[in-house]
Formats: sequence, structure tokens, C-alpha cells
Amino acid sequence: MPTPAPDLVSDLASITFASPGQRLDRAYARRPEMAQLATLPETRTVALSEGRIAVALDADKRLCRWHRSRLAGLDPIETVFLGLEDESPLLATDLGPLTEEQAQALLGEHVKFIDLRSISPELSALDAEIAATARALLGWHARHRFCSVCGAPSGIEDGGWRRRCPACGATHFPRVDPVVIMLVTREDHVLIGRQKGWPPGLHSLLAGYIEPGETPEDAVRREVMEEAGVPIGRVDYLASQPWPFPSTLMIGYRAEALDWPLLVDPVELEGAEWVSRAEMARVLAGDHERLASPRRDAIARSMLAAWVTGEVAGF
Amino acid sequence: MPTPAPDLVSDLASITFASPGQRLDRAYARRPEMAQLATLPETRTVALSEGRIAVALDADKRLCRWHRSRLAGLDPIETVFLGLEDESPLLATDLGPLTEEQAQALLGEHVKFIDLRSISPELSALDAEIAATARALLGWHARHRFCSVCGAPSGIEDGGWRRRCPACGATHFPRVDPVVIMLVTREDHVLIGRQKGWPPGLHSLLAGYIEPGETPEDAVRREVMEEAGVPIGRVDYLASQPWPFPSTLMIGYRAEALDWPLLVDPVELEGAEWVSRAEMARVLAGDHERLASPRRDAIARSMLAAWVTGEVAGF
Repeated sequence: MPTPAPDLVSDLASITFASPGQRLDRAYARRPEMAQLATLPETRTVALSEGRIAVALDADKRLCRWHRSRLAGLDPIETVFLGLEDESPLLATDLGPLTEEQAQALLGEHVKFIDLRSISPELSALDAEIAATARALLGWHARHRFCSVCGAPSGIEDGGWRRRCPACGATHFPRVDPVVIMLVTREDHVLIGRQKGWPPGLHSLLAGYIEPGETPEDAVRREVMEEAGVPIGRVDYLASQPWPFPSTLMIGYRAEALDWPLLVDPVELEGAEWVSRAEMARVLAGDHERLASPRRDAIARSMLAAWVTGEVAGF
Repeated sequence: MPTPAPDLVSDLASITFASPGQRLDRAYARRPEMAQLATLPETRTVALSEGRIAVALDADKRLCRWHRSRLAGLDPIETVFLGLEDESPLLATDLGPLTEEQAQALLGEHVKFIDLRSISPELSALDAEIAATARALLGWHARHRFCSVCGAPSGIEDGGWRRRCPACGATHFPRVDPVVIMLVTREDHVLIGRQKGWPPGLHSLLAGYIEPGETPEDAVRREVMEEAGVPIGRVDYLASQPWPFPSTLMIGYRAEALDWPLLVDPVELEGAEWVSRAEMARVLAGDHERLASPRRDAIARSMLAAWVTGEVAGF
């Protein structure tokens, strides 16, 4: 049985949020400069409004980097320091809700605030990382303006990478919630399922949050048993992907199913089924009469595609 | 070059919090019964006080499972549902600070509240998982009694696996903070470092929190560059370990160093150095004049031991 590629993230180029290419220089030592940088008209920033990000919709889709001076007259909710780009600081600004007039003044003909999920497959690796980091970090601030220890309003520190409570002194750091996602296989078949409310036909790999006190490997076994009633043997790591909705880290494993029968938990899943490799190839090609594939930028699709092509072996 | 074992967690038995053996049945569907179970005198619970856990210090070190009736007259801060053990519910109770009289009445001659770090290597795999889950979950409640969205007091739900704010309706889930820890090697040498305030001589593998918007592999490269100035090539997954201080998930990778020179960040590290395999064998054996090894129950030590013995190859 072939061994999976050692750093699969670099090989599964279709994982937009973790694809090979230029990385953001996070320049953590520069984070304390954020407050001052935000006052300089020439400092560049990406901009979000209600979770959507400003994108130039030219042939090359590209995140807008606006000078802070362009935001004059607006009242941003939060600003954070993302890092350096071409050695210049890059911020992310949450503009909050905008009136139609404000949005029109800000946006050009080919510039729009876009849901990251609908644009990320078309962004460069660097822009996808910048957008994911900005969305996850600003989304964390939006839900953490008060101290969870004592209830007092907390304040931003370290360029947005920490909050501190002036009342009790507690510090708070951005959340990243680890999730396991698993390619469960048995004799040339893969286990897929669907949740209620998903688009028609959509099926994907099973996934679930890692709980306190357990390893990812144990979480794989627990989740597959809870959701589908399938006992799992070996579990191997494949690849990971940050997924900023709101701020998860998808950690991908392949897992050996020890038996066929499915016992689906109707609370967790609307359904689950075994699909052959040939059938899954048709699903990924958009050529299946009943089943639809995960999004192009989801690690689930990359894992399925790697298994269909044989890049990753099943069990 | 040999490939690392596919599910190394099962092979590195010295990782207490992730060692092979019986697992806790988390029985998530039973979690809503917690409030009622806590009122029954015969319901069993593990007990914590100020982060320490009650352990019977007999020849076999074992977490105490007390009947709730034993806690009569005390005023527990929080109770959570851990799962089923021999098909019976098991809770975890945070007793908060106890007076000397209260502690004496509760504890026997061989029973003490112990810091988990000083006892975990001697616990069974199941007890270590129970203790880690209890400590991480109760510690999360202690720091999250108020809603981070609006500042109002929040309440416990789902047996302690969720909090809800009655004022704004927001739900909050326990944190698990993913951390990368890396076996950085080059030509039969491994990179170790030490932080300020560590016990004398102690050196360990470099580690750091994964940030929003990045993969673990990118976090490995970023942290090694930030802390030691060493460029990294390939990065492969090895194994993971939950570490409930307060609630992290250590995700272990091996990483290929592309160069020797070290440029240590004095804010992050007190020092870092390359150590040969033969020298590291002496460190792990407690037989080195200057360097001391990580704790027996830390994944860092398991990763170093696996490299020293050749179970895991370096680069």
C-alpha cells in the first residue's frame, strides 16, 4: 500500500486556504505598532463589512488594499495588524454595516464586498491566507468584546492578537477550533454523509470538533461511531486546512473502517452511505444523477480527489 | 529513510494523555441528563479543587470516584458530565477552595488533591483521559462564566459541554487550543531550546500556537523562524497529545532544517542549541551534565525518544 505524500498540503493545490505559494509575513514583533499605523493615511488595509471582504473583480480576482485615508468619514469597528507585504504593514479593518451611500462611495464598478466562500477558490494563495486570517481574527473580536472571566468590556492589544480586561486583568487570545475530517474507506468504497439544510445532493466527508482531553485520532473514531456507527481501526494524518467560518482548523485523516453496516444518528446526519471509487469520480466530475460534491476549496474535496486518483491510498 | 509509524500515538506508550488503552465513552447523547444525575446520591464523580484532582495514592494510583453523597454540605462551583464508565454515568465536580477541615473530612490517609502534572505518568490511560478532560472542561468554565458577546452571566447547558447567554442568546463551546510542537533535525542533530523560568537545565522541542488562517505546517515554519531563525523545508505529522494546562492540543511534527545557524529571539527563548543523537540519548537517560529532559508524560520526550531510538527518522 503506498504511503501518503509526506506534506500533502503542498500537493493538493486545490485546497485554496492551504495551497502552495507565497505566505503572509506575520511579523509578530511589529504588532504593537498597529494603533499608530492606523492613524497614517498611507497605511494599507483590507476591508470587511458584515463578514464580507472587499475584492477587485478583474480578470485576476484580488483583495483590495486600500489606504486608510480612503476610510475617512467612516467609523470602523475594529482594526488589526495582519503582517508585512513587500515590507509594508498591512492591516485589516472591520467597517461594520455600511449605508448604501457609504458603500457606493467606497466601491468602484468592479469592486464589491464578497462572501469569502464564494470567491476564495479564485484568490491567490497569499490573498486567501490574508482573507482567512482577517475574517477569523475580526470575527473573533466581534464575539469577544467582553471579558469572559468577569463580564467587563475588554480592550484590544498587540495589534489585535490579544484582548485584555482592564477590570480583572485577564488576557484573551484568538480562538482556533480544531476539527477532524476523515476519509473513511473500506475495500474501494468511501463513507460520505450529508447534514440537514445542505444544498440538494451535497455529500461530504464526516467531520467533528475535537473535544478537551482527546487526541485527533480518538476524535476520528468517536465521531464516526457517533454519526454513522462504524468502528474504525487505523487512523493516519493526511493534511490540514484553516477554514475561517468562523475560525476552525480542519485536520484531515484517512481512517480504516472495520465493518460495513451504517447506523446513522438522525440528529447529526440526514444520511450516510458507502460510495465506490468509480462513482465518486463521477460525483467529483459533477456527473452524478443524485450526489453533489463538496466545494472546490474544501479540504474534503481535495481528500476525495486524492483518493479517487490514487494519490492517497484507502485501507 | 524509514517512514514514521502511521499512528504513532499508539506506539509511543509514554505519552500518558494519548497512550493506548481503554478510552472514555463520552456518551454525548446522555449529557443533558447531568443536572438530574447530580442530584442522585449514588452518582459517581471525580473531584477537583483549585485545579488539583483527588487521587488514591495506593500502589496503583487511581482517580477517586466518589458518590455525590460524599459531597454533602459542600457547595460545588460547577459539575459536568464526562461520560459512562461500566455503563454508569461519571461526572466531574469542581469543589473550589476548601477549608482544611473540609479537606480533612473528605480525604483519607492515602487520598489527596494532586497537581495532574505530578501524577499523570502514573495513571492508567483511561484515568489520564478522564483527568485531562475534567481539568480542561472545568478550567474552561472557571474562565467563561460571562458571555464574551454581551458581558452578561451565562449558564451551563448540555452537561457542561456548552454555555448559553440568557441575555443575548449566544452559545459558547469549550476551547481546545491547537499548538504545533516540532522535532527539528539536521544531519543527526536535533534543535532544542528553553524558556525563561523553566527548571534548571530543562530543554525541550520548540512549540507554538497555531494562528487563525494558517496550517499547522505553516505554523511550524513560522515558529521555528521566529524563535530560532532556522529555515524549514519538509514538515511531516508524527502524533498528537491533549495537554490540559489549560486546554491545548499538542500536534507533533518532524521538520527538516535547511541550515545550521541559530538566531534566537530573546523574548521567546532563553536559548536554543543543536544536540547530537548520542548526546540526546544521555539527556533522556538523565545522564547529562548540563541538559535536562522534558517530563516523562510530555509528547516532546516521546518524540525525542522515538528519534533517538530510530523509530522516527530525522531529515
